[in-house]
Amino acid sequence: MAKIPHRLYLTEDQMPKQWYNLRADMKELPDPMLNPATLQPAKEEDLYPVFCKALAHQELDDKTRYVDIPDEVQEMYKVYRPSPLIRAYNLEKALGTPAKIYYKFEGNNTSGSHKLNSAIAQAYYAKEEGLTSLTTETGAGQWGTALAEACAYFHLPLTVYMVKVSYEQKPFRKAIIHTFGADVIPSPSNTTEAGRKILAADPNNSGSLGTAISEAVEKAVTTDGCRYVLGSVLNQVLLHQSIIGLESKIAMEMLDEYPDIVIGCAGGGSNLGGLIAPFMQDKLTGKADPRFIAVEPASCPSLTRGKYAYDFCDTGKITPMAKMYTLGCEFKPSPNHAGGLRYHGMSPILSKLYHDGCMETVAVEQTKVFEAATMFAKIETILPAPESAHAIRVAVDEALKCKETGEAKTILFGLTGTGYFDMTAYTAYNEGKMTDYIPTDADLQVGFDKLPKLPGIQE
Amino acid sequence: MAKIPHRLYLTEDQMPKQWYNLRADMKELPDPMLNPATLQPAKEEDLYPVFCKALAHQELDDKTRYVDIPDEVQEMYKVYRPSPLIRAYNLEKALGTPAKIYYKFEGNNTSGSHKLNSAIAQAYYAKEEGLTSLTTETGAGQWGTALAEACAYFHLPLTVYMVKVSYEQKPFRKAIIHTFGADVIPSPSNTTEAGRKILAADPNNSGSLGTAISEAVEKAVTTDGCRYVLGSVLNQVLLHQSIIGLESKIAMEMLDEYPDIVIGCAGGGSNLGGLIAPFMQDKLTGKADPRFIAVEPASCPSLTRGKYAYDFCDTGKITPMAKMYTLGCEFKPSPNHAGGLRYHGMSPILSKLYHDGCMETVAVEQTKVFEAATMFAKIETILPAPESAHAIRVAVDEALKCKETGEAKTILFGLTGTGYFDMTAYTAYNEGKMTDYIPTDADLQVGFDKLPKLPGIQE
Repeated sequence: MAKIPHRLYLTEDQMPKQWYNLRADMKELPDPMLNPATLQPAKEEDLYPVFCKALAHQELDDKTRYVDIPDEVQEMYKVYRPSPLIRAYNLEKALGTPAKIYYKFEGNNTSGSHKLNSAIAQAYYAKEEGLTSLTTETGAGQWGTALAEACAYFHLPLTVYMVKVSYEQKPFRKAIIHTFGADVIPSPSNTTEAGRKILAADPNNSGSLGTAISEAVEKAVTTDGCRYVLGSVLNQVLLHQSIIGLESKIAMEMLDEYPDIVIGCAGGGSNLGGLIAPFMQDKLTGKADPRFIAVEPASCPSLTRGKYAYDFCDTGKITPMAKMYTLGCEFKPSPNHAGGLRYHGMSPILSKLYHDGCMETVAVEQTKVFEAATMFAKIETILPAPESAHAIRVAVDEALKCKETGEAKTILFGLTGTGYFDMTAYTAYNEGKMTDYIPTDADLQVGFDKLPKLPGIQE
Repeated sequence: MAKIPHRLYLTEDQMPKQWYNLRADMKELPDPMLNPATLQPAKEEDLYPVFCKALAHQELDDKTRYVDIPDEVQEMYKVYRPSPLIRAYNLEKALGTPAKIYYKFEGNNTSGSHKLNSAIAQAYYAKEEGLTSLTTETGAGQWGTALAEACAYFHLPLTVYMVKVSYEQKPFRKAIIHTFGADVIPSPSNTTEAGRKILAADPNNSGSLGTAISEAVEKAVTTDGCRYVLGSVLNQVLLHQSIIGLESKIAMEMLDEYPDIVIGCAGGGSNLGGLIAPFMQDKLTGKADPRFIAVEPASCPSLTRGKYAYDFCDTGKITPMAKMYTLGCEFKPSPNHAGGLRYHGMSPILSKLYHDGCMETVAVEQTKVFEAATMFAKIETILPAPESAHAIRVAVDEALKCKETGEAKTILFGLTGTGYFDMTAYTAYNEGKMTDYIPTDADLQVGFDKLPKLPGIQE
């Protein structure tokens, strides 16, 4: 019998009561968000048409190190949290590695992922401010489900613009969002100017996250008492998701452990940014020096192959511009790409940390990802989301390196969610029909050519 | 802030190390299983062609009160257990009830239900005895998934006979079972004599649990080194599932609580039997006197409207006969019935307890069940399996009675699983297309007329 338990759950008393704002400890801050009309740094007021005030404040506040989690949000966290920190004994044994592998499992809630952590916070602040409805977009569907759950709880009507290809391929995701009482509209749609424009040019357009964001933002700014909320990329989202890393760190301290390597999948950065936050604080403040590895799909390689530049957060170019690693706001991954991690850009905070050499990145091909996912399911009993399996892939690879070198490193990775709604992709893999795709430099250049030209800022 | 936490997880040290065998405390035992060839009580040897020896022993052992959980099974339990005991604060508040509502949530594992608890035990004993493959049947799919997970872990090839209508309506269930490496065959099939016979009479037969059991048993007894395993009904399954009740009782003791009412859904009885076991022990030994409520679908009312009689466990009539509440082994619920809880009979242990007045039963219609499920999802964030929602329905009804009377009763119910693979049914409910069905007495008489005539035992 092992002394370290397989699963460690914090008690309610041990759960964090504050989120951690990583920006407060960054030596150099990310470049500011720009108002596209003035090319000046966006002020809180500039964001009010899109975000509620509390969230606009959190978006721009780079000073407050710890932010109190409102009591009502803490109460809701307790309904499904804490999430377990799991020691992957079975995986270690199967790999024959001396490495100690831990994972923080965020999939044990109906949204199937960590997304609920920020959804609850954003719905709470909107309700507090007297807003009467919300809009958002969803791709793979975890975020739409999470926000529908949060809005059902706070009695806020919600409209979800769902990337059309997902809407059609994932009827059960749509059904679950419906069950929580939200409206789901396939995007591009004729309910917005942005959608109508895209459909006029291409009636068969299958949608993208960037387009769905454009539609959701437009709907929010043109509807009384309505605001837009986003499940990733933003600073506020990384703030809320710091609960993942904070809980992980408390749990590891209880076990007298500290990670040598922290690994997370990276799409917009919500999970990775949340998971690494308190460990990155240690690095930035000189208390420890763990390695951080962001894992992204080879088919959507914003960090590994993107440009570090100002870009729009949406395809319709109506949002503020952010400095981030980006493939261009019109980028869409190839149709054979399964699951999420399909956003064209990356969290400005994570982009800056990567740019400053604080973080490594790896891009992996999806057949390798599903190979790891299937092995993991059989050994650890959890069927991972394709997104999460990117982190599994690299955790396994690092553990195998330890096997070669004989080093007993401590690896922590984020298992963000479950794959129940991704069985089409699993079936393709099981039947040997899954393919890989790596965009050529020429493919990517198309997106780079369309990056905004900003006189005096970027040419 | 409440003193009793929302979620209580036992530590590994607190987890039970023995299962509890309810039969050891029953004043009067269930009538013995009969060998259909001799009409004599089945002996262990009689069961060897079907079950491995350790499980045949557990099936008939009504003396050993506590059975050690093998170390290897305990280790696997720790990979996904303990399951949380959850205080439904949000539900209590929404109902405005003085009742305290607790639920034991068994859905936080990839099988999506409590079924994994027995699957691991059964796969372990089979492997220990040197068996080289297993067969089973699955209806809604939880059991097939659970056993596929367990067999993947213990490296045992598995063939799952899946009720054809489920196989066709739930391609993702099939896909997940495949992912864990098991074969899935739609039943009735032409791979067995039993299947061929049914298909000859009715080529469009959409299958039933009883038929799938016949096929799986036939395959097992005609294949070297192969045995059959079953996820419900059997005494051995209730033994393994006692982990649910044992954990619940320890957790409630830690909170200084004891249930006035214990509620569980009842199909074959695996969850209900496991959940109530240690509390029923208290009742049988005079230590406490909680109420027990078995909830079943009005469309498959084996306890509320069945006959207490000897019947076959399968449609093909090749298994031993058990004395149980039954609708007749050829009974199939109407096609509009969603989810599991569709077995024609009921665990002999539970049947006897009910017959002896130790337990109440309620039959509920499925639109009422989905009404409760949807409300529960919005309030407690968990999307329940349709099966589990039967228990929610009655827990809500009992809590509302407390609201009327002002009694602060303590209610414990079993939330056996999640509904991710039941979105077709949820969609039907959301769109107002779900219908109810209550068989007429004449409908049921057809099944009763076919109960076996056993000279000197039952006419």
